[in-house]
Amino acid sequence: MNTPIFNRVVVIGPGLIGSSILRRIQKDRSIALYTVAADTNPQVCERVRELAIADEVYQDPVQSVKDADCVVLAIPVGAMGEVAKNIIPHMKKGAILTDTGSTKESVIKAIEPYVTSDIVFVPAHPMAGTEFSGPDAGFESLFENRWCLITPTPHTTQAGIDKITKFWQAMGTNIRILDIKHHDKVCAIVSHLPHLIAFTICNTADSLEDEARSEVLDYAASGFRDFTRVASSDPTMWRDVFLNNREAILEMLARFTEDAQAMAKAIRWKDEDYITQTIQKGRRIRKSLIDNKQLQ
Amino acid sequence: MNTPIFNRVVVIGPGLIGSSILRRIQKDRSIALYTVAADTNPQVCERVRELAIADEVYQDPVQSVKDADCVVLAIPVGAMGEVAKNIIPHMKKGAILTDTGSTKESVIKAIEPYVTSDIVFVPAHPMAGTEFSGPDAGFESLFENRWCLITPTPHTTQAGIDKITKFWQAMGTNIRILDIKHHDKVCAIVSHLPHLIAFTICNTADSLEDEARSEVLDYAASGFRDFTRVASSDPTMWRDVFLNNREAILEMLARFTEDAQAMAKAIRWKDEDYITQTIQKGRRIRKSLIDNKQLQ
Repeated sequence: MNTPIFNRVVVIGPGLIGSSILRRIQKDRSIALYTVAADTNPQVCERVRELAIADEVYQDPVQSVKDADCVVLAIPVGAMGEVAKNIIPHMKKGAILTDTGSTKESVIKAIEPYVTSDIVFVPAHPMAGTEFSGPDAGFESLFENRWCLITPTPHTTQAGIDKITKFWQAMGTNIRILDIKHHDKVCAIVSHLPHLIAFTICNTADSLEDEARSEVLDYAASGFRDFTRVASSDPTMWRDVFLNNREAILEMLARFTEDAQAMAKAIRWKDEDYITQTIQKGRRIRKSLIDNKQLQ
Repeated sequence: MNTPIFNRVVVIGPGLIGSSILRRIQKDRSIALYTVAADTNPQVCERVRELAIADEVYQDPVQSVKDADCVVLAIPVGAMGEVAKNIIPHMKKGAILTDTGSTKESVIKAIEPYVTSDIVFVPAHPMAGTEFSGPDAGFESLFENRWCLITPTPHTTQAGIDKITKFWQAMGTNIRILDIKHHDKVCAIVSHLPHLIAFTICNTADSLEDEARSEVLDYAASGFRDFTRVASSDPTMWRDVFLNNREAILEMLARFTEDAQAMAKAIRWKDEDYITQTIQKGRRIRKSLIDNKQLQ
């Protein structure tokens, strides 16, 4: 066996993402010799023990990070700052701190003030997920052929980037290094806005008069079903994402609303050409996605 | 073998829906002894012959309906009136005319003027589909466990409703009899609005600056991918749906836009409670869908 990338990896927050990381390491010990899971929720700790997906489990993140070479924060982005503040003083000199948050500017702003000169902070965002959450939801192939976006801060060392690159490559992802603000803008349109729309349309349906509402449930055709698939994702995670990528999401929502209004106008005035063009553009984007092999 | 429901069924428009009907009958001859397909596009006719999914194929709908007990219009809703006008004078006395359109008020308005007293018109809407189109896209189990909504006109006979009920039950669907306007309102929210949003968000992404746009393709996470799946549906079909269920779609889009603006305001003013409630309602609707067994 080659030298493992890390000796001891700690995953704080063994939910969908965190427990998938743990499962992958369990299958491939060239990633880490030893794994530790930490979660402040005792039921999550208990479940991780039952699933036996970590070598050691702590309820206290501070205790868990002792002697770790790498600590992965896989918690809602709104909780990152507080946890980083508590654990960093207890981390080993030279250890790497990384995260899996979907928003990067806010996470970096929250964590950076607590990063001491002997710790390397490497912000990362594995773009993978399902509509399920919690330690039972994870699986070892979750990251296979997906992207992991790394957004270094001015203090992130090249050695740190290289290590986290290797780590996520071993998880099965392709790697891109991205500018922080640019990351947040791209994710606002490809992920955050679709989720916001999905939650919203469910509410629109929910507020229909009683008879129509029950029929929405009965007749949910593929359109609505696809939308609500996204809408069953973890509430705390998404509340935090919306609040922590505020500017980019509001900008993309404003653009989307303009486009939706233009479509409404075209429908009202029976502008067949505009409607057809809009539909065909949608299909083109879809085709590009297939060509880019982002689809199964 | 029991007496078949029909002797001779004609499917006009052997696309995703139409070719699925033909395939189902081919597998289960208790639905119809003989099938005919008709399409004005010679390439579609040729392909249906190659696939050998109909007993007879015509390019001229008028010729195809001769001696049929049941004619199924499986064409874009905007084309229904013209085709009905042409074929009805050539249909057998007592034959049933039915359709598969996603909008019912407009289709009934378009067809009814041409329906003679010796023809029974039974408007129907099988709620099934995929993002693919054309005769190759169909498959015999497309309708399995889905809904077929029947929206009788004042002239539709009970005998006609019973026959089409049997026909769609044999296709695998559950049946509901629905008021016409009510059908259009429910479908506006469960199907038409989600498609409109899907096409629109693709356009929003497409109009981003070049660099961000190419990255949308690269990083399309599950949210965007689910949206664009719907967006690859047939353009003519959807243009027609938007134009033919105009009032209901515009009303639902207006309600949705209000809800999206309320969400934007909550994000801007960091109203955590509102955001969390919106997300949780979305999850509840999703859970109801699972309880209703509308999901695989």
